[in-house]
Amino acid sequence: MKPSIPKGTRDFSPVEMSRRNYIFDTIRSVFGLFGYRQIETPSMENLSTLMGKYGEEGDKLLFKIQNSGDYMNGLTDEELLSRNSLKLASKFCEKGLRYDLTVPFARFVVMHREELQFPFKRFQIQPVWRADRPQKGRYREFYQCDADVVGSDSLLYEIELVQMIDMVFSKFGVRVAIKLNNRKILAGIAESIGQADKMVDITVAIDKLDKIGLDGVNAELAEKGLPQDAIDKLQPIIKLEGSNSQKLDVIAKVLEGSGTGQKGVEECRFILAGAEKLGLQNRLELDLTLARGLNYYTGAIFEVKALDVEIGSISGGGRYDNLTGIFGMPGVSGVGISFGADRIYDVLNQLDLYPKETAGGVKVLFMNLGQEESAFSLKLVTELRRAGVAAELYPDEAKMKKQMSYANAGNVPYVAIVGSNELQEGKVTLKNMESGEQSLVDASELKDFIK
Amino acid sequence: MKPSIPKGTRDFSPVEMSRRNYIFDTIRSVFGLFGYRQIETPSMENLSTLMGKYGEEGDKLLFKIQNSGDYMNGLTDEELLSRNSLKLASKFCEKGLRYDLTVPFARFVVMHREELQFPFKRFQIQPVWRADRPQKGRYREFYQCDADVVGSDSLLYEIELVQMIDMVFSKFGVRVAIKLNNRKILAGIAESIGQADKMVDITVAIDKLDKIGLDGVNAELAEKGLPQDAIDKLQPIIKLEGSNSQKLDVIAKVLEGSGTGQKGVEECRFILAGAEKLGLQNRLELDLTLARGLNYYTGAIFEVKALDVEIGSISGGGRYDNLTGIFGMPGVSGVGISFGADRIYDVLNQLDLYPKETAGGVKVLFMNLGQEESAFSLKLVTELRRAGVAAELYPDEAKMKKQMSYANAGNVPYVAIVGSNELQEGKVTLKNMESGEQSLVDASELKDFIK
Repeated sequence: MKPSIPKGTRDFSPVEMSRRNYIFDTIRSVFGLFGYRQIETPSMENLSTLMGKYGEEGDKLLFKIQNSGDYMNGLTDEELLSRNSLKLASKFCEKGLRYDLTVPFARFVVMHREELQFPFKRFQIQPVWRADRPQKGRYREFYQCDADVVGSDSLLYEIELVQMIDMVFSKFGVRVAIKLNNRKILAGIAESIGQADKMVDITVAIDKLDKIGLDGVNAELAEKGLPQDAIDKLQPIIKLEGSNSQKLDVIAKVLEGSGTGQKGVEECRFILAGAEKLGLQNRLELDLTLARGLNYYTGAIFEVKALDVEIGSISGGGRYDNLTGIFGMPGVSGVGISFGADRIYDVLNQLDLYPKETAGGVKVLFMNLGQEESAFSLKLVTELRRAGVAAELYPDEAKMKKQMSYANAGNVPYVAIVGSNELQEGKVTLKNMESGEQSLVDASELKDFIK
Repeated sequence: MKPSIPKGTRDFSPVEMSRRNYIFDTIRSVFGLFGYRQIETPSMENLSTLMGKYGEEGDKLLFKIQNSGDYMNGLTDEELLSRNSLKLASKFCEKGLRYDLTVPFARFVVMHREELQFPFKRFQIQPVWRADRPQKGRYREFYQCDADVVGSDSLLYEIELVQMIDMVFSKFGVRVAIKLNNRKILAGIAESIGQADKMVDITVAIDKLDKIGLDGVNAELAEKGLPQDAIDKLQPIIKLEGSNSQKLDVIAKVLEGSGTGQKGVEECRFILAGAEKLGLQNRLELDLTLARGLNYYTGAIFEVKALDVEIGSISGGGRYDNLTGIFGMPGVSGVGISFGADRIYDVLNQLDLYPKETAGGVKVLFMNLGQEESAFSLKLVTELRRAGVAAELYPDEAKMKKQMSYANAGNVPYVAIVGSNELQEGKVTLKNMESGEQSLVDASELKDFIK
């Protein structure tokens, strides 16, 4: 029997783990600096918590867990023979695997509302599962790294989230464009041209300007049922150019008649001005074509693109006004962002941006050259570990070549040799594996030499 | 609708998370010092990998994941109407949730044998799932922290694992007894009294000495079918006392006729002498009554008991000779230990041993006293974060009382106040929340003051 793992899932080797940990640790440290605190929720949620929250397609993509014990009990012959997979699944299964971190977070807030102090700033770094068709870069088990604050509608949090995005990617050394949009502006535009129900169609069409040109966009708008006068009014929006404030001036003019739209413009001005005053490493730009989560977000929308790698968005988020309403706790506003760890991993790989230390592993490997020698070495290894230096002794008196190939495979920076001479003198021959240089070091000075 | 979570699962609050992270980080750091490197495996494995590896009871306790799509396809009416839950589960489900970290590790080693350098030292800290009846201290989702080395039968690894256990609990400040047993000694004892098939019965009976006394143990042995002369020969073993080496002398005598038994005695002597020479903080004692994993371990067996808290074993492990044999790669010896994070959590809670910093959270909260004041504060907050100090600004100009109660709930050590006076002078009033002391600090010196 040749063992395998389910498609769309992955094993992570030590090298991959140290790189992934570097990503998670960096994101976690930034979340912490901004006062977000970690929570975790169970991998399985009740299906009643998950179903209906991700649309019909989402319901199908939930991994469902079969009830333990006699899960077929109480089913009629008719129900069984109907072979209605979806309906019977709800009889066979009460639990499902987490599909994202947002719905479990909403459930958490509602369940623990009495213990929480609002505004509540939480972050969460956990795997999620989706029964998607696996393909390159898309997995059935993958990590999300989310930070959200609920219980405040202060726009200072939007600024803070932009700063967090900026700091995370600065730490990684990845140049990004942080794109900002606002659902209120989009709604205002659709409203002010008399096409309130066409907001998504308009956004999606404008997004194609680069690909299909102005005539193409206008044709698509007409195809979606927009009358010519509405399309005419949209022209300044489609051809929007210039700095953020130039763009906002154009938009504000189109939105003169829409209260919602004007509110959106104000919000954008506040966020852009605030972020600029505090100083960003990366570019923050207004982009009306962000259509991410339009059914969901109610204010600001964020999306992050890497500038030096061709890849989809590597982070995103926005403001939502009724996250916990689905669980009977209305009127709680929230705003959050999510980092896509797997895509960031690919970006750092492509740009070769991992710091050298993330290779991990021990600092010194002692060769095993005999019983007395290894007993002496083991003492030194023990002292090194107590001093915080990762060290080990090769476990057997194997051939030198074999021991050396173990050292090489582990990328060990130093190899320590204690033969009979060293043993007598209480010294260690230390070989720097990068330079090849050898030094005879007093056993008592080993720690300091390596540190 | 009142949301809830599946029984036997848990949400973790920020305070719980920082304590759990302290446990995981401590264990991870020790694993790393000893040269163990982290891997991760998928939460779901193919059921063919998991089934039959944990006994019949274990198969029932696996959480099985329903196939996506039309999982009822191809089933006859007869099969469906049989309502044979267990048999149909194998048709409905191809995947299951990880039940422990050992079987996935064996699968990992076999699948990646060509990429690995042996001996391969790995650690793994991940959740596992069991459909056990939930009860106090037993959960359906819980973390295991395992370190194993495969591909070497060197006893130096047994010594190393004892050192790791010792270092982990020393770091936690928990006093423990590390108990050592050896499957070869137990087998040798059973063999040398002519009762090779009664090894487990004998071990279990001897384990009851404290509870039921010598007569009770002998009665139980007789009940299990041991003849009187076998029971007579066991008396020195049952009444075993004294130091480790005194015990080993007694055992060695009983085992004179058993090659396996003598090998076990030698192994114990080597491990005990090695560990003693290197120096342990905690007591390492020979204990023949450890029956942990007897069907599984082939050499050394470890178990750790906390001395100051009444609780089951908090760590354990041993040597196994054929972990990967089940996946077609025979003859690979391994030895490992596992730390029970949930029980360690309970122990640290009961003994109140968490370092103060594990409370987590921000170092300074700035009060929000107006628009200009908060703009100035936000600059300082940004500088602090860039300098690595976790800081935040209250998001609204709320009442002082509300802002202060937010600070208290977050256990913030410093509250920073920037009113109109401070704003004019470029200063900050910093309140130490523990001592109540207030200091007027120059904005440029804030960082150093707090660090």
